[in-house]
Amino acid sequence: MVRGRISRLSVRDVRFPTSLGGHGSDAMHTDPDYSAAYVVLETDAEDGLKGYGITFTLGKGTEVVVCAVNALAHHVLYKDLRDIVGDFRGFYRQLTSDGQLRWIGPEKGVVHLATAAVLNAVWDLWAKQEGKPLWKLLVDVDPRTLLSCIDFRYITDVLTEEEAYEEHMLTHGYPAYTTSCAWLGYSDDTLKQLCAKALRDGWTRFKVKVGADLQDDIRRCRLIRNMIGPEKTLMMDANQRWDVPEAIEWMSKLAEFKPLWIEEPTSPDDILGHATISKALVPLGIGVATGEQCHNRVIFKQLLQVKALQFLQIDSCRLGSVNENLSVLLMAKKFEIPVCPHAGGVGLCELVQHLIIFDFISVSASLKNRMCEYVDHLHEHFRYPVIIKKASYMPPKDAGYSTEMKEESVKKHQYPDGEVWKKLLAGQED
Amino acid sequence: MVRGRISRLSVRDVRFPTSLGGHGSDAMHTDPDYSAAYVVLETDAEDGLKGYGITFTLGKGTEVVVCAVNALAHHVLYKDLRDIVGDFRGFYRQLTSDGQLRWIGPEKGVVHLATAAVLNAVWDLWAKQEGKPLWKLLVDVDPRTLLSCIDFRYITDVLTEEEAYEEHMLTHGYPAYTTSCAWLGYSDDTLKQLCAKALRDGWTRFKVKVGADLQDDIRRCRLIRNMIGPEKTLMMDANQRWDVPEAIEWMSKLAEFKPLWIEEPTSPDDILGHATISKALVPLGIGVATGEQCHNRVIFKQLLQVKALQFLQIDSCRLGSVNENLSVLLMAKKFEIPVCPHAGGVGLCELVQHLIIFDFISVSASLKNRMCEYVDHLHEHFRYPVIIKKASYMPPKDAGYSTEMKEESVKKHQYPDGEVWKKLLAGQED
Repeated sequence: MVRGRISRLSVRDVRFPTSLGGHGSDAMHTDPDYSAAYVVLETDAEDGLKGYGITFTLGKGTEVVVCAVNALAHHVLYKDLRDIVGDFRGFYRQLTSDGQLRWIGPEKGVVHLATAAVLNAVWDLWAKQEGKPLWKLLVDVDPRTLLSCIDFRYITDVLTEEEAYEEHMLTHGYPAYTTSCAWLGYSDDTLKQLCAKALRDGWTRFKVKVGADLQDDIRRCRLIRNMIGPEKTLMMDANQRWDVPEAIEWMSKLAEFKPLWIEEPTSPDDILGHATISKALVPLGIGVATGEQCHNRVIFKQLLQVKALQFLQIDSCRLGSVNENLSVLLMAKKFEIPVCPHAGGVGLCELVQHLIIFDFISVSASLKNRMCEYVDHLHEHFRYPVIIKKASYMPPKDAGYSTEMKEESVKKHQYPDGEVWKKLLAGQED
Repeated sequence: MVRGRISRLSVRDVRFPTSLGGHGSDAMHTDPDYSAAYVVLETDAEDGLKGYGITFTLGKGTEVVVCAVNALAHHVLYKDLRDIVGDFRGFYRQLTSDGQLRWIGPEKGVVHLATAAVLNAVWDLWAKQEGKPLWKLLVDVDPRTLLSCIDFRYITDVLTEEEAYEEHMLTHGYPAYTTSCAWLGYSDDTLKQLCAKALRDGWTRFKVKVGADLQDDIRRCRLIRNMIGPEKTLMMDANQRWDVPEAIEWMSKLAEFKPLWIEEPTSPDDILGHATISKALVPLGIGVATGEQCHNRVIFKQLLQVKALQFLQIDSCRLGSVNENLSVLLMAKKFEIPVCPHAGGVGLCELVQHLIIFDFISVSASLKNRMCEYVDHLHEHFRYPVIIKKASYMPPKDAGYSTEMKEESVKKHQYPDGEVWKKLLAGQED
């Protein structure tokens, strides 16, 4: 029944001045102007039907959601509606798990509101093409199709597709997990070379990315453990790849390589999930580390309350700057959990070194089980780059937060008009 | 020592094409281009010092964060840096609790990343003016000042300012709570009139906003309970105003008015907090309801796991559209928790009626303890507005998701060029 390719996506910022009458006011939102980011999808089908989708906002900031919708548009435009609906789980995951865009969520805040607006329009369009109100479409569609719209990632410890199918529907669905073939872009040879160099440079603690393929993980972990020997420290990082039971099972298979911790085993929002994983891995001597995508102090609070982590990883750019990181450092101190910051990226090392040095001097007064991540990338673009000696951060001496970049680096990399991008984008056009 | 007014805020989108070398790739982020939203703050002070702040991103979507920074800029521009630093908690809260902007967070995702970028620049500027590296500024500043930078809202059940001060610092700090004077914009007279009209129209369940002032709440709740009588249902909504112990204490004082539930008593991220409140309110016969700002199914999962709510409030525009709402409806069914959707806003009633009708027919098959919120606002702008009869939603008959607005309404309210806004904005300029 569904038909047509998406030929146009438009989004508008619509606001109603409800604050003038005090409508909608409450203890926290004292002057809301009820508003919406309003999406219209058009297709090339002859029926001329359009899909309309909105997400609700309170006035200011709607333009940010509009901006996010535009950022998602390329996932939607020129897609055949049959392909979208035929693999709705895949399409949903495309929107919510875009390897670049998901960072600014993931699955929360602005990007999730934008996702809602876009998907609401898709559902509207589908229902219109079926000639049914949406509830009726939902009631009528066969159970297998309905369940295939759901992304079960992160919730299978509570509800699996099969279970949902058996409980509420008729027979078995197919497993919710997919395995991505692309991960950790370095070849084994590159990995060996880099590992050897790091050993020569005096590094004693190593982190390896895992989570995409168990056999691949086993091969890579063995390779690294063999290179660094039994005494040096190895950490593993799954970047939220797993569900809760999956994380436990997977790590049982990697336990022979004696990791100190497994980092981000599952959704950063799943506090209870981390607690379950933590408890299960105690007998294996593996701790749980997380934090780089914990979105605020409330999440850290709960992780600490239920002993969901053994290593707490603050991030200088995800929490609300120093203010909020302070509250987390203090809570970690209270719960006696070591803070081992997340760093890398662009400038994260430069910034977080300030926080961890402060933590050592004024809060924890301890180095036990503590270390700060370091990645040797992009420091050359900073005016005051980190200084590493003998695998340690040297306290910065220049005034400020070490956040300033070299003006020529900024100019060159500004998007889309910087020299580097002009060239790259021109190259893509060829 | 701090000096100057913020005279300029600029933000740029800077990207490094790291994906070309596979740098930074992992199981979930297969092709990151390490990037930043890069903020520069300038002041009118003669020293010429600037504050630089970044937040880290992965390429696509950086423009959304840039857009959010611009949305925050008015909180920063032309502020005296002494006022910012002198009441940093207040300034922090201004950024994170803007009554309109916080909706698209709150305190998470894009807006929080933008907040981080802006505040990082403020801290950089402050440290530069003190002529110190930031860690040193933090080490040196007196404890009272440092703690006054932290917003303790939502974490006082684990850590209060006094406790932090006693434990890590020297003497007492001052309480973290402020009381906003503005809430629920209607006067008692208006409230009485509206209540009387609703009774005439056959409504039997009423919700009242609470949380700003206890005496005010007591007066208003008494007024409403007296008007509706003892048999009708009363719900209360605090819109995340409270910390955990505060919520329990406050609701003990309002228990005499026999509310069915207290809605959003604390941070939507605080799963364990809701569980604690739930447990404490059982003897008072008050349930906990939440969900309109629960940002994804992972949060709902945990709320259900720890029996943190007795009424689950899905929202049609915050979760990932129908796909994700389905997963929540199914989990609610499994845990035997009634779903009572959030509605109101712009189009939320129009949309969510589809979901709740579907829930009744295909999932819960029950009306026990179930009801859907309704607010009589803005329906006139929709092409297929909800139809309410005898205080019930009538199943919509028109094809689609009821999301389409009237074109003339959209045109009129488009921001900033619609007729309504042109007039309003022109008025503000006069």
